[in-house]
Amino acid sequence: MSSNRPPDRGNDPAEPRVDPLLEVREKRRGQRMGDSYVRIVRPFEDEFEREEGRLVATERTVLQRSGWTRTLRGIRTLLIGRPISSEHEQHERLTKVKALAIFSSDNISSSAYGPEEILRVLAFAGAGALSLTLPLAGLIIAMLAIVTMSYRQTIKAYPLGASSYIVASDNLGDRAGVLAASALLIGYVVTVAVSVSAGVAALTSILPDIYPYRVEISVAMVVLLTLGNLRGIRESGSIFMAPTYLYIVTMLGIIGYALVRNALGDLPPYTAPPEWAALNEGTQALGLFLLLRAFSQGAVALTGVEAISDGVPAFKAPEWRNARTTLTWAAVIFGILFLGIAYLITTLGIVPDPFEKQTVLSQLVRHVTGNGPILILAQVATALLLVLAANTSFADFPRLSSFLARDGFMPRQFAFRGERLAFTTGIVALAGLAIVLLVAFKASVTGLIPLYTLGVFLAFTLSQAGMLLRWWRRHEKGWRQGMIINGLGTVTTAVVALVVGTSNFFQGSWMVIVLVPALMALLMGIRSHYRSMEHQLEAVPGIDDDVEPDPIVIVPLARLDRPARRALAFARTISPHATAVHITNDPHTADQLREHWHEMGGRMELVVVESPYRALVGPLLRYMDALQSLHPTRPIVVVLAEVVPRHWWENLLHNQTSLRLKLRLFGRKNTIVADVPFHLGD
Amino acid sequence: MSSNRPPDRGNDPAEPRVDPLLEVREKRRGQRMGDSYVRIVRPFEDEFEREEGRLVATERTVLQRSGWTRTLRGIRTLLIGRPISSEHEQHERLTKVKALAIFSSDNISSSAYGPEEILRVLAFAGAGALSLTLPLAGLIIAMLAIVTMSYRQTIKAYPLGASSYIVASDNLGDRAGVLAASALLIGYVVTVAVSVSAGVAALTSILPDIYPYRVEISVAMVVLLTLGNLRGIRESGSIFMAPTYLYIVTMLGIIGYALVRNALGDLPPYTAPPEWAALNEGTQALGLFLLLRAFSQGAVALTGVEAISDGVPAFKAPEWRNARTTLTWAAVIFGILFLGIAYLITTLGIVPDPFEKQTVLSQLVRHVTGNGPILILAQVATALLLVLAANTSFADFPRLSSFLARDGFMPRQFAFRGERLAFTTGIVALAGLAIVLLVAFKASVTGLIPLYTLGVFLAFTLSQAGMLLRWWRRHEKGWRQGMIINGLGTVTTAVVALVVGTSNFFQGSWMVIVLVPALMALLMGIRSHYRSMEHQLEAVPGIDDDVEPDPIVIVPLARLDRPARRALAFARTISPHATAVHITNDPHTADQLREHWHEMGGRMELVVVESPYRALVGPLLRYMDALQSLHPTRPIVVVLAEVVPRHWWENLLHNQTSLRLKLRLFGRKNTIVADVPFHLGD
Repeated sequence: MSSNRPPDRGNDPAEPRVDPLLEVREKRRGQRMGDSYVRIVRPFEDEFEREEGRLVATERTVLQRSGWTRTLRGIRTLLIGRPISSEHEQHERLTKVKALAIFSSDNISSSAYGPEEILRVLAFAGAGALSLTLPLAGLIIAMLAIVTMSYRQTIKAYPLGASSYIVASDNLGDRAGVLAASALLIGYVVTVAVSVSAGVAALTSILPDIYPYRVEISVAMVVLLTLGNLRGIRESGSIFMAPTYLYIVTMLGIIGYALVRNALGDLPPYTAPPEWAALNEGTQALGLFLLLRAFSQGAVALTGVEAISDGVPAFKAPEWRNARTTLTWAAVIFGILFLGIAYLITTLGIVPDPFEKQTVLSQLVRHVTGNGPILILAQVATALLLVLAANTSFADFPRLSSFLARDGFMPRQFAFRGERLAFTTGIVALAGLAIVLLVAFKASVTGLIPLYTLGVFLAFTLSQAGMLLRWWRRHEKGWRQGMIINGLGTVTTAVVALVVGTSNFFQGSWMVIVLVPALMALLMGIRSHYRSMEHQLEAVPGIDDDVEPDPIVIVPLARLDRPARRALAFARTISPHATAVHITNDPHTADQLREHWHEMGGRMELVVVESPYRALVGPLLRYMDALQSLHPTRPIVVVLAEVVPRHWWENLLHNQTSLRLKLRLFGRKNTIVADVPFHLGD
Repeated sequence: MSSNRPPDRGNDPAEPRVDPLLEVREKRRGQRMGDSYVRIVRPFEDEFEREEGRLVATERTVLQRSGWTRTLRGIRTLLIGRPISSEHEQHERLTKVKALAIFSSDNISSSAYGPEEILRVLAFAGAGALSLTLPLAGLIIAMLAIVTMSYRQTIKAYPLGASSYIVASDNLGDRAGVLAASALLIGYVVTVAVSVSAGVAALTSILPDIYPYRVEISVAMVVLLTLGNLRGIRESGSIFMAPTYLYIVTMLGIIGYALVRNALGDLPPYTAPPEWAALNEGTQALGLFLLLRAFSQGAVALTGVEAISDGVPAFKAPEWRNARTTLTWAAVIFGILFLGIAYLITTLGIVPDPFEKQTVLSQLVRHVTGNGPILILAQVATALLLVLAANTSFADFPRLSSFLARDGFMPRQFAFRGERLAFTTGIVALAGLAIVLLVAFKASVTGLIPLYTLGVFLAFTLSQAGMLLRWWRRHEKGWRQGMIINGLGTVTTAVVALVVGTSNFFQGSWMVIVLVPALMALLMGIRSHYRSMEHQLEAVPGIDDDVEPDPIVIVPLARLDRPARRALAFARTISPHATAVHITNDPHTADQLREHWHEMGGRMELVVVESPYRALVGPLLRYMDALQSLHPTRPIVVVLAEVVPRHWWENLLHNQTSLRLKLRLFGRKNTIVADVPFHLGD
């Protein structure tokens, strides 16, 4: 290997010198083989493995730290575990049974709060209007059938993932894609907030004592989900199947039991607590607007369809066919639960708790099964399912962000996988935004729903319209039928988006109408920034960036102490013409420094700038401007002597000026800043 | 002048090269004289004046800015004005009349709230106990006489400023001095809070509508005082005389008028509003403890003595004699006002407002003169005087801080004069702490007083004890008499400190008992840090800091773009053996980079480090450690390519990694970091 290292590498630029780490390791091996006396030359064996002429860093390079960063690392390891190597990334495929449990949790869990939200709006028109819940639920299920049909097509067309962002970008262009993505991102944040709020509401229904702490509990749940996802929990774990099937089985059982008891005339009608009466009295007339609002609140039930389409690549082959089947099954199960619950509520005459302390579903279960273990089972299953539904956003939001970051629409950090292979930035951003929503809306499902549905239906509409155009352009087999189905889907979702946007405008959908275009503008702005930057940064052969610069070197100094002398020595290695600059408001110290300068055998020129306004940064910058005007093309190197204390908090006693100076110099063109540290206490 | 520049300066280290700025200016002059054609060579004439071989920065160097810093500068100039040159520092001397107005405002203003605070404590023992106010006031005035006598001696002994810090340090050693300083610093903060609160209380007494906003108004007053002091208001302005004399004249007039009416039997007894009755009913027995507490609250009246002693050097010559006379006069005036008010309150039977909406002084004035213009005049004069009293702390705190910073007990920033010659850091620190107190104590004078007196009396005691020791050591003329007076002062102030500390312990003096030693420990710790640093930084001839280092140069890079090539070019100017390091989690990009490297004619060695844990900082640091272990003494220079966007907020999209890297490298020994910027958008 030693032949790889030319004796005078400067003369042979084409043949790079081998890295001394690689090289010395080779030497040691040679020693080991040729010589019985093996000497350990240096301590990097645990840290780098050598592989085909490159070094491969081991886990130690990430873990090894000192001082307070070691403490941080310890806490981090405790919370999210040790780093995982890229090679351990898993690509497990899901069976339909598993996929149904994981991807449809968002959809199926809507049955826990959807009927209640319809009921709450109708209650404004008095108890008599509540009977309209069932017809509205039926209408929503009809919509679901259309959307499901429509998405079955999309899944087949995009077996690598049918996210609205991808479908809309692909067929309608970048702008439509980014619009869909903006709507989805906001939707994912609201999903977390709504699902966690509804999950906590399921618990407060059986534990009324924890009601005052619902916001804190919701936030704690988001934090737990965040830590779990930073750890990189595998969605594919079988444990994630439990809540969905537990919920389905429990609820189907309860609904069936109730239907039977009801048919036998065994179930007494529901009587609400008397203190709700005054609050639940109708205050509005039952008009079209109220009906539309009730429909809008209930339409939240359709928002989970995207999750299965997003997850197509995770299915076992044939992916698209399995995903389609699962989608249909999810819709059917959801339809039975939703209609069953809506029917029972209407029949029994259940009214919503105006204080939001008890969910309508828990009232129903309590009425049917009493205060026993079944109630507890149903509520716990509901809460678990809702947490699982929130967790799907913790997979979807970071993944969509990483797509957007990869395409230059979001900061690059969103595309980096963290130490545990999770998209750290996306997870933390989602959690932060969801916590803001939870606190702002006091974890109220009813308050959050208006923010939810519009964004999701906007994305649906764009995705369906994209499919429509795709059929039209490609004229593939079955394009006429496809266009009819997706056309129906487009119209349906567009109408729902319109209804939701207008009827809930003042309840909160105005926020979405403001936020979605704002976010879209931000994403487009970020890409245009990155593009213009890429253009400027591109290395073009022949351009003069790699011409050796002939820098002007200056060393600002206050005194001629050891750090200053070290900085001066370094400055001389860059240029023999380096200059020291002393800026002072006190002519006496300047004279002292000058004397000292000669005593110490100052081998460099010393310029004294008096600053009667006591400022340091301004005069130095102006001095540099003046130098620059003499040599407009040469870069200026500012060599700064810095004292590094032993403890970070001691920095309060040092380097204040140097920090301000660096901030200003960072913005100055053609200026290189070199920090020469002097470490105290060693 | 051109002879000053040796043709080859490297060979003649003793003769430094003249700065090119100075030199070219010389040339231009030569041109102007010898040649009719004068060419303006460069644009620094407005910025630097040349003086005896040095440059003197003009105001333009401070003001000239670009971008958002220009906006900041504009706001700053609007609020506090343009910079002032050091040469304009004024040293005006004060006449006794002016000095009395300025330095005694703190002392005299105590008469506005001192009697009330005694009254409030006695009220706990019922209305009957209130008559003890007058004897307690008499006792306090007797104490004041002793303290005044004692300080007359101190002023004579320390004509350059008799701050307790100086007197205690000088005679009892550094520790006692720092203890006194800590007590004083806390005292100054409380002075601002108490004076402003009392000033606002004087205003709410005539404008009850603003009572709910008293905290906001107090904070606004502190902000105004801060801006005024940052501007560098001259205490010597005659306008500052007005409040003190207005208050003295108004109050003496009202007291006189009331005494005459009282003597004539013309003044009816006071009747409190019936709604106060229940709240002012005595709840405690009148014991020794309550008396001591009442005395402690009233002892606040003595806290202003330090201000005159601090300001001795500002008097006209003979400074000490004039200061002494002024101190005596201030004590006499204060005594008359304090006793007069206490007498009238007791005689008329005024009781304090349990809601703290009206001051006792305003009740008195209202009772004597009615709701007319006299009342308004008295209250406005009181408020103005109290603001002026707060303002004395804005002179004292920053000055004491600057002494402490000069002696190494506080961070150096406290010793720097800002652009307007004011001690910016000290002023801002004082304002911030006072605002915290005002908010925490809801601008309540009664709540704040217990924090006030103890610290001040602690400082008094140390100062008097210092004088005692000084007499004993020096045996100067009159030392026996001096020892008796200062001994009496020491004992008196020590007893008061003890009484205040114990009787008000649970009311708040425990905070002082905790904070003073904590602050003292902090100040001592700072000095020991600075000392140990000085020791380490000291340049010793012969030590090897200025040996030319032979640095190892590495350039971490992600891609071979223009910024990277610029960084590589700079790295080569430092060392011909510079190495590029590419850390990646993707072997493909590494291969691409390597190809690119040869295409672009990479004249340097490229080391590829694979990082399967996707971390960048850790592996780079470990790589550096490995390099270092091969060459333990050579410094490592890390040359970083940085993209500088046009707008600061665009930094969110860049340099995240580079920032983290720099933070970690800053703590690494023997590591020099050079930032090579690439500016976007030009």
